[in-house]
Amino acid sequence: MTTAAQISLVNDLASQVSEVVTDELSLLAASTDRSGSVAAGLPLAVVRAHSIADVQAAMRVASAHRVPVVPRGAGAGHLVVDLSAMDRILELDPVDEIAVVEPGVLNARLDAAAAEVGLRYAPDPASAAICSIGGNVATNAGGLRCVKYGVTREAVLGLDVVLADGTLIHTGRRTMKGVAGLDLTALFVGSEGTLGIVVGATLRLKPRPVSTLTASAAYASVAAAARACAEIAAARRLPSMLEFIDRRCLEAVDRFAGTRYAERGDALVIAQADGPAAATEIEAIAAILGKEATWIEQGVDEESSDRLVETRRQVLPAIEAEGSWFIEDICVPRSRLAEAVDRISEISDRHGVRTYTLAHAGDGNLHPVIGWDPSPDDVPGVMPPAETAAGDEIFALAIELGGTTTGEHGVGRLKQKWLEPEIGADSIDLQHRIKAALDPLGILNPGVGF
Amino acid sequence: MTTAAQISLVNDLASQVSEVVTDELSLLAASTDRSGSVAAGLPLAVVRAHSIADVQAAMRVASAHRVPVVPRGAGAGHLVVDLSAMDRILELDPVDEIAVVEPGVLNARLDAAAAEVGLRYAPDPASAAICSIGGNVATNAGGLRCVKYGVTREAVLGLDVVLADGTLIHTGRRTMKGVAGLDLTALFVGSEGTLGIVVGATLRLKPRPVSTLTASAAYASVAAAARACAEIAAARRLPSMLEFIDRRCLEAVDRFAGTRYAERGDALVIAQADGPAAATEIEAIAAILGKEATWIEQGVDEESSDRLVETRRQVLPAIEAEGSWFIEDICVPRSRLAEAVDRISEISDRHGVRTYTLAHAGDGNLHPVIGWDPSPDDVPGVMPPAETAAGDEIFALAIELGGTTTGEHGVGRLKQKWLEPEIGADSIDLQHRIKAALDPLGILNPGVGF
Repeated sequence: MTTAAQISLVNDLASQVSEVVTDELSLLAASTDRSGSVAAGLPLAVVRAHSIADVQAAMRVASAHRVPVVPRGAGAGHLVVDLSAMDRILELDPVDEIAVVEPGVLNARLDAAAAEVGLRYAPDPASAAICSIGGNVATNAGGLRCVKYGVTREAVLGLDVVLADGTLIHTGRRTMKGVAGLDLTALFVGSEGTLGIVVGATLRLKPRPVSTLTASAAYASVAAAARACAEIAAARRLPSMLEFIDRRCLEAVDRFAGTRYAERGDALVIAQADGPAAATEIEAIAAILGKEATWIEQGVDEESSDRLVETRRQVLPAIEAEGSWFIEDICVPRSRLAEAVDRISEISDRHGVRTYTLAHAGDGNLHPVIGWDPSPDDVPGVMPPAETAAGDEIFALAIELGGTTTGEHGVGRLKQKWLEPEIGADSIDLQHRIKAALDPLGILNPGVGF
Repeated sequence: MTTAAQISLVNDLASQVSEVVTDELSLLAASTDRSGSVAAGLPLAVVRAHSIADVQAAMRVASAHRVPVVPRGAGAGHLVVDLSAMDRILELDPVDEIAVVEPGVLNARLDAAAAEVGLRYAPDPASAAICSIGGNVATNAGGLRCVKYGVTREAVLGLDVVLADGTLIHTGRRTMKGVAGLDLTALFVGSEGTLGIVVGATLRLKPRPVSTLTASAAYASVAAAARACAEIAAARRLPSMLEFIDRRCLEAVDRFAGTRYAERGDALVIAQADGPAAATEIEAIAAILGKEATWIEQGVDEESSDRLVETRRQVLPAIEAEGSWFIEDICVPRSRLAEAVDRISEISDRHGVRTYTLAHAGDGNLHPVIGWDPSPDDVPGVMPPAETAAGDEIFALAIELGGTTTGEHGVGRLKQKWLEPEIGADSIDLQHRIKAALDPLGILNPGVGF
């Protein structure tokens, strides 16, 4: 883009939106994201949207100038629309159990507001304290509780979306059920910003459980831990959390926090039950967990239960403290969990790569975290060769086991080459036809997703 | 279509699919549906599909001949693809808790098969015994249990779909979670056969509850019954069923079954709790129901619980016995339930129309059933003038209360004029763009849905 064209764009924006910034610091801030991936250049400008009208105006100007629009992490030549200032909870209805929010509302803040009336927002990504509802909708975010409560898609009743040409549409409804027309809501959920910009969401809240209790057990082998998880399912128990942590994660936490978790065994399982039957349920789950355990502990109240989950919370900070890392997000049929963990371990050993594996075991959703020592040769956002090779084999493994290369994080830029092996060329072609129908100029988040 | 063109079509079909029928009886059978609506003419032919390849071949031939394809109830000039012979449960995995089925499998048959391994297929439309999974997917069917377990969309993990040009695509996955690409699965669920033909489904099963208990209470007024329902939600209870039945329904059952339900009050509520805490939950729910009740009964075991649901099961057969009827399917925010029932009653009185109202109260999903005495002037599939006027006012009421004109039955042909007032012209336009991207010739179920 020429300087004159850029000035014209910024002038058009300035006359039509509340706030547009072009100072280098703001542009730099907008061009990075937490994946470690760094954009090839700076965006042209950042629109800080304060209203739906701002987003519509930004899209109309972007369409007129044929400029790509991205939420953040932009490369050169892009316009960034920053929605973080649109952070109001517009409505929280305790009878209808719904919330209407702007996209910048943080997940944990909404949950805290819901808690005041005995409700909760169920999807709980590990990043709940810093992630926005808009981002959660874009990736169809999951979390620890979705084994019982479902992912973001299950919590979204309706959306307000600004399309590429600036049109505002409303999808879905405020009611619990409704089938008038195509399910556009679900189409936008998980579309990673490629079909429209979500400027509002009507969300379904759930009763906050009266009780939540936890049990944790360690095992001499991954296979024994996986057998325990499978038996919980076979007994038709419905845990509200079922987490798996391997020895390498435990060792990292031990180094980080001075604990001695790894002495307990080669794998740890943390299970939670909630609701009115939490006490009897966790008792039954603990009985199953205990059969082959080398160590087991059961929370007697909410506080001791919460302490048992602390191990899980420490895993990512502990890994982060050990150097560079990249978190994968594969999901396999849960009957293949043990096989997946063992083969990830074999792949890592063969490549001489350090892989820590944790998993939402109840969903078969594994997060193998590949770690390496930082070096001056590192390319930002790219793993070293051996780690890349191991990572690729893990993606291939997910597909081989009948699973997916992304359970809850999305495709983004990093997993695009795995999409066709997973879902097939015909499906991708169909998605491009839908994309073209909604964004004919292709200006929304180009190069991301399918 | 000329006779020569028709012969050419049938010849092409006969050479490429397992079974094509053109006898008048089969064509007549294919041209009616249970809504009472009768097609304006006979279809050209019926393809009885026995395999996915049959459906693909039928679509390729239909595309080549530019002939519209409908599942049934077709008008003149259409080809019907009948999937009822594709009725195999291909897989039922008790560990992964999934089923893979052909579209002709009946809902109740799948649930019975799941029951053998302690699982169940949660969506339970009242027509479970006679409705197919393919039809459930087409309309995103609901039922009595969806207040706790969600609708069909929540139960579908993946689909096999034949597109208008005969291409077979696979959407979704076998895993509990997955976000690789757009959510095409949800796009096809509820699309009423307008985007593709569902030839296979991968479904999520749920643990069968260890216990299910019921309480039922009658009230002197609709308002009192609605207050009880609202208080159950406010107490953050999660019933697995919460049904509302008005006096007119009770009177019909009394005439039909010789019972004396209407003596108990002007409205009846039936609540169910299931799972490991069913006993304490139903106790708590019954305590709430009892506050203003004129009559209350609580099931002490599964058998007496089931008897209390019998009243609900008798409502539709009882109404059917009283003459012609049309069932509406509006959904309102559940806080507006009492207002909706009262105004339906006012509208019906003003038009001198007989309306029986039942509702899935926990979801705010009302089924006002308009009944009338059959007359020789009746036009099949069309209500008499006063009934039509009342029905239209009820649809308008749903939209006025922030609700929808269809909670779980779909738009079909009968509710098309209500779609734009409800979802807006921009949304319909977007849906047409998506339809054009998937079915450029517009041959799939024309005139249905959006």
